[in-house]
Amino acid sequence: MQVQVVENVLKLNDEIAAINRQTLRSAGVFTVDLIGAPGCGKTALIEATLQRLKGRLRCAVIVGDLATQRDADRMARYCDQVVQINTGKGCHLEANHVRQALSRIDLSRVDILFIENVGNLICPVGFDLGQDVKVGMFAVSGGDDKAAKHPFLVCESAVLLLSKTDLLPHIPFDLELFERDIRQLNPKVPLLRLSPVSGEGMDQWVQWLADQPAASSRTVPYPVSR
Amino acid sequence: MQVQVVENVLKLNDEIAAINRQTLRSAGVFTVDLIGAPGCGKTALIEATLQRLKGRLRCAVIVGDLATQRDADRMARYCDQVVQINTGKGCHLEANHVRQALSRIDLSRVDILFIENVGNLICPVGFDLGQDVKVGMFAVSGGDDKAAKHPFLVCESAVLLLSKTDLLPHIPFDLELFERDIRQLNPKVPLLRLSPVSGEGMDQWVQWLADQPAASSRTVPYPVSR
Repeated sequence: MQVQVVENVLKLNDEIAAINRQTLRSAGVFTVDLIGAPGCGKTALIEATLQRLKGRLRCAVIVGDLATQRDADRMARYCDQVVQINTGKGCHLEANHVRQALSRIDLSRVDILFIENVGNLICPVGFDLGQDVKVGMFAVSGGDDKAAKHPFLVCESAVLLLSKTDLLPHIPFDLELFERDIRQLNPKVPLLRLSPVSGEGMDQWVQWLADQPAASSRTVPYPVSR
Repeated sequence: MQVQVVENVLKLNDEIAAINRQTLRSAGVFTVDLIGAPGCGKTALIEATLQRLKGRLRCAVIVGDLATQRDADRMARYCDQVVQINTGKGCHLEANHVRQALSRIDLSRVDILFIENVGNLICPVGFDLGQDVKVGMFAVSGGDDKAAKHPFLVCESAVLLLSKTDLLPHIPFDLELFERDIRQLNPKVPLLRLSPVSGEGMDQWVQWLADQPAASSRTVPYPVSR
């Protein structure tokens, strides 16, 4: 009976996710589900991305946390459509959370929707939200073993990000081991090293976003002189 | 029906946890369930703790991860009783995992059992494993907002650890804000700042362990000259 119930929960989630996907694609919105550990720098990355996309692509953000409004407040400085979802004890976003949040967003003014999932490398991978892509994010401060320990995220991601590279001089981190672990799990996934602090890799990340079909159909080519 | 099944799962878990607790207490073992985000430094802390307790308290470790044997291999250098549990897609340890692991540990040779939970600040809080205490761990590299965002862990912990303090010169982290958030949720919980790299706070942490009843009944007083 337990298995049956779990299957039903996932089936209902998938049905709502399919509706979200139809809604978002009809509106020409490209949707990124950003998944990473607590403190890996998801909010900082989205803040920096919003600043770089300003005037090029119109953004909205849905952000999930157990508690507090802090991430939404941070990102609202750079984006006028930010919705915070507090999951209480919930360790991941589900499609119905996104469905509710979408009712508060004017999609006719959006090219890219960032969904910052609850800080967790595990459960968010298993729930379809209606996104176009899941993007897995690691930070050098989390150690070089985290890709190998989270194979499902590595396999499900359209692009992988290694952030906080500005800290590399202060932390032991074996970049070759990290990349080798990824290649064994997902040989072709792009891996971007980046740091919103130093700016490393941010051009490639923004270019990757701009290259995605739904986004590129609405915008001027990137990069442009800033 | 879903609610009923969830209740049954938790009830079964609690029953097995009670058996674990009885087993551990009968053997005079003090058990710590260490909970923190992926990459906050749980394994490094246990490694450093094993080294400092050597000759004083006899230790065993149960370590949970989705995949790989890497943490167990690291800790086995300092401890002859280490059991790795791979949870697959499971985001937390449950009491039956610990029950199985205990069958592989000679408890007559153990004073302190460390359970390194799966890297996750959320779900591990809700599952009793039979431990004496849950210990919540944050890292300065994860940002100063993580206590406020994870109130259940803060409230359930017997002691809170803020690790990687050696990185403070390189990272913006508001110690006052972090501590104020904790005090609002759990006014009396001890908060230890520590770093296995610099050694900061390690004496206090080891002293805290040695002060716990089950542990202190078996050992010489700590600190001792090393």
